[in-house]
Amino acid sequence: MTAAPARKSRQGRRARLQAQSAAAPASPAGFTRGIPYYNFLDEQSLCRLEAQADWLLEEIGIRFQGDEQALQRWREAGADVQGDIVHLPTGLARHLCKTAPTEFTQLARNPERNVRLGGRHGVFAPAYGSPFVRCAEKGRRYGSLEDFHNFVKLTYLSPWLHHGGGVVCEPCDIPVNKRHLDMIYAHLRYSDKPFLGAITLKNRAEESIEMCRIAFGAEVMEHHCVVMGNVNTNSPLVVDKVASEAMAAYAAANQGMIIVPFILGGAMGPVTTAAGLAQSLAEAMTCVAYTQLVRPGAPAVLGSFLSSMSLKSGAPTFGMPEPVMSNYAYGQLARRLGVPTRFGGALTASKLPDAQAAYESADSLQSTMLGGANYILHSAGWLESGLVMGYEKFILDVDRLGYMQRILVGMASDDNALARDAYREVPVGKHFLGCGHTMANYKTAFYDAQLSNSESFEQWTEEGAEDAVVRANKKWRRMLADYVPPELDPGIDEALQEYIAKTKSSRADAWY
Amino acid sequence: MTAAPARKSRQGRRARLQAQSAAAPASPAGFTRGIPYYNFLDEQSLCRLEAQADWLLEEIGIRFQGDEQALQRWREAGADVQGDIVHLPTGLARHLCKTAPTEFTQLARNPERNVRLGGRHGVFAPAYGSPFVRCAEKGRRYGSLEDFHNFVKLTYLSPWLHHGGGVVCEPCDIPVNKRHLDMIYAHLRYSDKPFLGAITLKNRAEESIEMCRIAFGAEVMEHHCVVMGNVNTNSPLVVDKVASEAMAAYAAANQGMIIVPFILGGAMGPVTTAAGLAQSLAEAMTCVAYTQLVRPGAPAVLGSFLSSMSLKSGAPTFGMPEPVMSNYAYGQLARRLGVPTRFGGALTASKLPDAQAAYESADSLQSTMLGGANYILHSAGWLESGLVMGYEKFILDVDRLGYMQRILVGMASDDNALARDAYREVPVGKHFLGCGHTMANYKTAFYDAQLSNSESFEQWTEEGAEDAVVRANKKWRRMLADYVPPELDPGIDEALQEYIAKTKSSRADAWY
Repeated sequence: MTAAPARKSRQGRRARLQAQSAAAPASPAGFTRGIPYYNFLDEQSLCRLEAQADWLLEEIGIRFQGDEQALQRWREAGADVQGDIVHLPTGLARHLCKTAPTEFTQLARNPERNVRLGGRHGVFAPAYGSPFVRCAEKGRRYGSLEDFHNFVKLTYLSPWLHHGGGVVCEPCDIPVNKRHLDMIYAHLRYSDKPFLGAITLKNRAEESIEMCRIAFGAEVMEHHCVVMGNVNTNSPLVVDKVASEAMAAYAAANQGMIIVPFILGGAMGPVTTAAGLAQSLAEAMTCVAYTQLVRPGAPAVLGSFLSSMSLKSGAPTFGMPEPVMSNYAYGQLARRLGVPTRFGGALTASKLPDAQAAYESADSLQSTMLGGANYILHSAGWLESGLVMGYEKFILDVDRLGYMQRILVGMASDDNALARDAYREVPVGKHFLGCGHTMANYKTAFYDAQLSNSESFEQWTEEGAEDAVVRANKKWRRMLADYVPPELDPGIDEALQEYIAKTKSSRADAWY
Repeated sequence: MTAAPARKSRQGRRARLQAQSAAAPASPAGFTRGIPYYNFLDEQSLCRLEAQADWLLEEIGIRFQGDEQALQRWREAGADVQGDIVHLPTGLARHLCKTAPTEFTQLARNPERNVRLGGRHGVFAPAYGSPFVRCAEKGRRYGSLEDFHNFVKLTYLSPWLHHGGGVVCEPCDIPVNKRHLDMIYAHLRYSDKPFLGAITLKNRAEESIEMCRIAFGAEVMEHHCVVMGNVNTNSPLVVDKVASEAMAAYAAANQGMIIVPFILGGAMGPVTTAAGLAQSLAEAMTCVAYTQLVRPGAPAVLGSFLSSMSLKSGAPTFGMPEPVMSNYAYGQLARRLGVPTRFGGALTASKLPDAQAAYESADSLQSTMLGGANYILHSAGWLESGLVMGYEKFILDVDRLGYMQRILVGMASDDNALARDAYREVPVGKHFLGCGHTMANYKTAFYDAQLSNSESFEQWTEEGAEDAVVRANKKWRRMLADYVPPELDPGIDEALQEYIAKTKSSRADAWY
């Protein structure tokens, strides 16, 4: 452990926490939902899905592959472990989830950006994990550390993204076994929003947590969540050792764990939506339960990522009816379990930020809003089924996140909203443009979408007849040109760089 | 009246009604909702909005401009008429709406395409009223009768559009005082779906109805709705003579009337959303009530078209949070009134079928689905705030209407959907691609979006790297090339053409 840097951290924390960025807008630290959930499934259907999840866990079981410590924990918890397949008696997983917090706070480096997850509270975070990036000028190419920095900066500057996400793109120019260090550093250095750590190997998870100890102080982390991991199960019904060890590492450190079964219907689960949904509940609930075996009370998020399949190509499709319905229903299932949930995002199979991308992304995103997701990863930038992080797509998506958040606030119907004075002032048939009520309210009455052009055809033509992608391109270039990094305590910065240099020098480069 | 053609019509009707088109797919005759409504506002807010509508009608009143017959009808109904402003005592409008049917059927020329409106039943119809059209090759230009024919044909061929709409674009090459005849003829000749008639002058409304008498028979129309008009009020709180006479013409003939206040917040109503919503209810409810004064039991639809305003340009904006919230709420208000409702569509301010257009259209459309609209005009083709009907936009929208209708069916959670046999067949960790349950279900498991490309980047590149607009362009060209008109009884065709020739020759061309 790195006690000296942690001390430095404590000394600088107050100044650091009070520092305000000169560049990033005062964005809300997450959203708080003021509108009802969309309750898609009836009670009977929900009970059937829950019973199916129980049946799966008891009869079929779930494999914890190659992780003897996990199997031992399950034996001690009362599961019937046969080989590496864990059979959970009905109700055990649900019971163990009871110690997971219904809501929790993840601290940010800037306390004004601390976020609350669970219940009516949630966040939007950018897309995660693409090896490629795309922009209008250079097209599609492998992501680099420079691209990674750019997306961390753009996320920092975007008021409608509350969470930094994690692997905003793969920095493919950095060795695989070292890039997590550069990624965590970038989140800490170029942003002050909360973020996700590495999960791709046990030591990478631990090193992510260690870097957070340097930045936040070890004792803060004993009592607060400052970093989370986002882990996929290996559906159907398998949790591999990398995943279970990452869960154990984060939970043991009292840090958050988001567990997300990725189920492509017809491949990693049955082709019918209800089956995929119940399987997702079974897998994710078991993993949340597992974090509670490691450390009761550790924060955990119940995730789901269901995709439909193209009959033409067998490829996953996004923004389609079946996963959207799943999202509505998964929110209901998560609320009944009492654990924060993650699903959805601005998902698309399109290769370009075109109409296909926008239709699919919009329809996918709206189900997160109405279904009640708390942690919404892949909210901005996602293209090509997740293979590509798009610069222009990122900007366009963020604008619609503002739209979503306006709806999440809800609609006022108080006296000011009903505007009786306006009707008394304006004669029947006359317009309301200059009346007192309009003047008092117009600035806040409507969401001001930055990327939507509503000018006349003539004016738009005069200004260059730019489509949405051209406008988005200009916007991200301007944002990066104007970017000013948030302050970071020099002592912490030095300690982080020291830690990274030491850790990097301790191993040879690995490229796969 | 044209008794002779009506007789011809009766003779040929059975054969005609039994004739099946060789070209148009067997599309569902409307959708029947299997999923819950999204109940956005709570009881208290709904009561406040209803009380506000009552207050508006009693205290502020609504002008029936220049239509003495309408004012007389209101006097007789018990309203307090001061000049041309009608003040309705609280509850009167709502009470009069009780004779309007909660559900009704509009007959189509092909009885398999008859549609049900109200309750859980609804239809999607294309965009209405644009003077311009746009396609990828020719760009933006005034619409022509050829364009009108094209959009009627494309609508006929689109399985997810159940209703032909009306002015699918303005045929600007035909005199203003004659084009309604060509439009009604095109709906009857090139499609067999139900449609809307003219409302822009009293005689045009009457001539639309007369042409339907030729096609359907006068006595059928006494008992069935075969044509509807779609009329805007002149918000705020004005119904002009053209509108009230069109309402009277359709209602007197027992035909349907859709009444739609268009309220741009801050101009035709207060800038706050709740006020616009209550005003829309007040205006539309009054007009529905008016149709019932003309003929109790005449079908009527309570419409709403609320738009937000750009702070930059003062222009209307679409697909924005405020109108989307209005849609959710308007569905609730309409259900409480017990009248079918119209709102929404695939609306956008974008000049092109780009990402802006798709985001805004998707977000606008989904609120019609979840809010429970019955008649959804502007579902396909709308661009540039309604000034343009887009060929590619039309194709792209229709594909997402299929998406919507898949969701409206809902999600099965029966034994087949839960697929326990599949789990018994497939070992833990293995894929479900070839298992019996997948083979039995894969063909119907997922919506097959025709315009969404989900192929790999490599395959997509090899096939020309086409964006969504290029694919849509190919699709509508192919559809028109393959188009085969539905059968039309030659006697009716002849009678329609005779009626059109006679009517056209009775007046000089007018171009405005």
